[in-house]
Amino acid sequence: MKARNILYAQSGGVTPVINASAAGVIEAARRHGERVGRVLAARDGIIGALTEDLVDTAQFSSQDLVALAQTPGGIFGSCRYKLKGLEDSRREYERLLEVFRAHDIGIFLYNGGNDSADTALKVSRMSREMGMSVRCIAVPKTIDNDLEGTDNSPGFGSVAKYVAVSTLEASLDVKSMASTSTKVFVLEVMGRHAGWIAAAGGLVRRRESDPPHIILFPEIPFQEQRFLDAVDDAVDRHGYCSIVVSEGLRDAEGNFLSDAGTSDAFGHRQLGGVAPTVAALVKDRLGYKYHWAVSDYLQRSARHIASQTDVDQAFAVGEAAVDLALDGHSGVLAGIVREADEPYRWSVQPVPLEQVANHEKKMPPEFISSDGYAITEPCRRYLQPLIAGQAYPDYGPDGLPAYLEKVLTSVDKKLPAFEL
Amino acid sequence: MKARNILYAQSGGVTPVINASAAGVIEAARRHGERVGRVLAARDGIIGALTEDLVDTAQFSSQDLVALAQTPGGIFGSCRYKLKGLEDSRREYERLLEVFRAHDIGIFLYNGGNDSADTALKVSRMSREMGMSVRCIAVPKTIDNDLEGTDNSPGFGSVAKYVAVSTLEASLDVKSMASTSTKVFVLEVMGRHAGWIAAAGGLVRRRESDPPHIILFPEIPFQEQRFLDAVDDAVDRHGYCSIVVSEGLRDAEGNFLSDAGTSDAFGHRQLGGVAPTVAALVKDRLGYKYHWAVSDYLQRSARHIASQTDVDQAFAVGEAAVDLALDGHSGVLAGIVREADEPYRWSVQPVPLEQVANHEKKMPPEFISSDGYAITEPCRRYLQPLIAGQAYPDYGPDGLPAYLEKVLTSVDKKLPAFEL
Repeated sequence: MKARNILYAQSGGVTPVINASAAGVIEAARRHGERVGRVLAARDGIIGALTEDLVDTAQFSSQDLVALAQTPGGIFGSCRYKLKGLEDSRREYERLLEVFRAHDIGIFLYNGGNDSADTALKVSRMSREMGMSVRCIAVPKTIDNDLEGTDNSPGFGSVAKYVAVSTLEASLDVKSMASTSTKVFVLEVMGRHAGWIAAAGGLVRRRESDPPHIILFPEIPFQEQRFLDAVDDAVDRHGYCSIVVSEGLRDAEGNFLSDAGTSDAFGHRQLGGVAPTVAALVKDRLGYKYHWAVSDYLQRSARHIASQTDVDQAFAVGEAAVDLALDGHSGVLAGIVREADEPYRWSVQPVPLEQVANHEKKMPPEFISSDGYAITEPCRRYLQPLIAGQAYPDYGPDGLPAYLEKVLTSVDKKLPAFEL
Repeated sequence: MKARNILYAQSGGVTPVINASAAGVIEAARRHGERVGRVLAARDGIIGALTEDLVDTAQFSSQDLVALAQTPGGIFGSCRYKLKGLEDSRREYERLLEVFRAHDIGIFLYNGGNDSADTALKVSRMSREMGMSVRCIAVPKTIDNDLEGTDNSPGFGSVAKYVAVSTLEASLDVKSMASTSTKVFVLEVMGRHAGWIAAAGGLVRRRESDPPHIILFPEIPFQEQRFLDAVDDAVDRHGYCSIVVSEGLRDAEGNFLSDAGTSDAFGHRQLGGVAPTVAALVKDRLGYKYHWAVSDYLQRSARHIASQTDVDQAFAVGEAAVDLALDGHSGVLAGIVREADEPYRWSVQPVPLEQVANHEKKMPPEFISSDGYAITEPCRRYLQPLIAGQAYPDYGPDGLPAYLEKVLTSVDKKLPAFEL
């Protein structure tokens, strides 16, 4: 029987380690050379799959794959393009299967979050209906850690490590100067709907006097006076106040604080930026000198401070996706199962996509302290292993990480063009 | 002859490596045990020297000193408190010398920037006038790299490395997603008066297509339409545009863009934040989806990505300051001399403080490209060695850097209290 090909695509926001999953897929496929043909990758995620813009990963040398696993961003490109239900997006699903047929795709690996799990599930069902037997596996990825069916999502651990290390470092800076200078520091982090990333800052706090003194979670409605009292209390007791705020912080009416109508000199409405809003409130009401930082994409791309656990898991879910498909699975997620907290043990197991697609994993209420400003011990036990270990990239003599740069050539198209 | 004591103080904004200079001072003094008594450190910089709040560094074990050299922030505290001329601040200078006398200080090491060099010079002169023979050495430190008399300032190299690595990483992220998402990314960096830090982003750009496509220097007045054309051009040619902007960017009238009257939902004026201003301009005039980051203190405290060159130099200027004082120098800076670009060689030499105090080293015009948006090859040759090498801190099993935490006890006061 002729070995059929794999199609791999990245989806949604990229992470510091999504390319490690790509490397895991390619390496696993090469180990199974007798059962797998080529590994093709779609450019710009599902868009490339639809437009038949595919790259043959045979052009990656073994050395390239080592560098790929160390490179942030998405090497093939990713996109935000959501396929809807089978009714609304029938034309796209049919096109996908047409592309699969044209390129002899027997395995479709979709590396993304909730939406991607849904797409993988639908493609799996539709291919079965059409008698095509394409095995579809979702490879988990999202910095937001909100994916169901997996104990944690590759990408999150490294972002968590970045946020924790940054919180620690910036707080040491503020603490040094607080007697005569900045007393309040605000770090804005991602996580619009769930506080997982903000919670990671809490890993720094071992003692009550440690930073961050306040975490503002998207799950906890912002109460201005209570917050100001907490800031004042921290400055009184510790000399300074270090704050981590989620971009998704909302007021009691459910409005994002970052959408609070900020406007600049040009009269433009500024989106984003809850940190400056919170900092200005502190300055205005309490008079403390403040500084704020918005790490934005820096946190999402900081491969230089990646967690070893995260890199290992990202690679492993890529490898496992190939193995699961070869074992006959389809319509499953290569999910991470936590087997023990300490010492931390985990494995990768197939999880039916019905349990994953279109769900959103929230922070459990018991992970947030009763005052709403800190993490609890169960939360610490959950987060701790995910940031463990340093997975430094190789550096060039120029002092910069030797991230993979590669001009990728596309395979010849076999089908007529497709209008998106 | 009885060995006299050293007083060491940190001044101004802290850096990722100022504690490495402290470690260099303490270790050098311990090597010269027969000629140096105790090394005392002032809490909160010159404030502690005035209020006689001093710490005996004998409480640091050898192991502590290894950790100290890896710890960002200022372990003894720092402050922004500038002594004026001898006329205006006579009372303070006299008090300093009184504290020196009470604690048998024969060597005063002041670790800071331009203002500190000026203070060290004045204390040196005044002690000579009063027949006290306190040897005063300035130990260079400033992330802004604007200190005269030294080829570069410890602290800058690590911030430069942070900015270069962050620019590279965030740009890879944006590039991955640009086909359907963010096309313009703006990273705001420090350096209010000189573009040294912004220039460091330019180290990433080897080819014309590489990021950052635009650097906005404080030295080059902002021209809105020219800038917008450059953004459009980058998006056209490369699919995305990566921008590094200095917080000190000014318009043609000399006004800071960050002071451009931004106000938030509370009606508070927001200070800082030139990145959101520039990003909103791009959105409004060109319609591109954007993201922006303000790294603020993160860049100044990021010991986790410190440059090995920088850590080595920070330690060396601390050591050299002790050696210079023991060799009879006073009123000098322990300046870094560049002996060769490639391979990079450097040494530490005494530089008379008259050549240092109250000067400000600007970017040479030949370091900025003719279009004002990039660095030149001479600038690259200057910057390159300063970010070379990785000097990772040790990490704990918790995945966080094992930065030194130490409760420091103060020595007994011998003088009446002093009102600041």
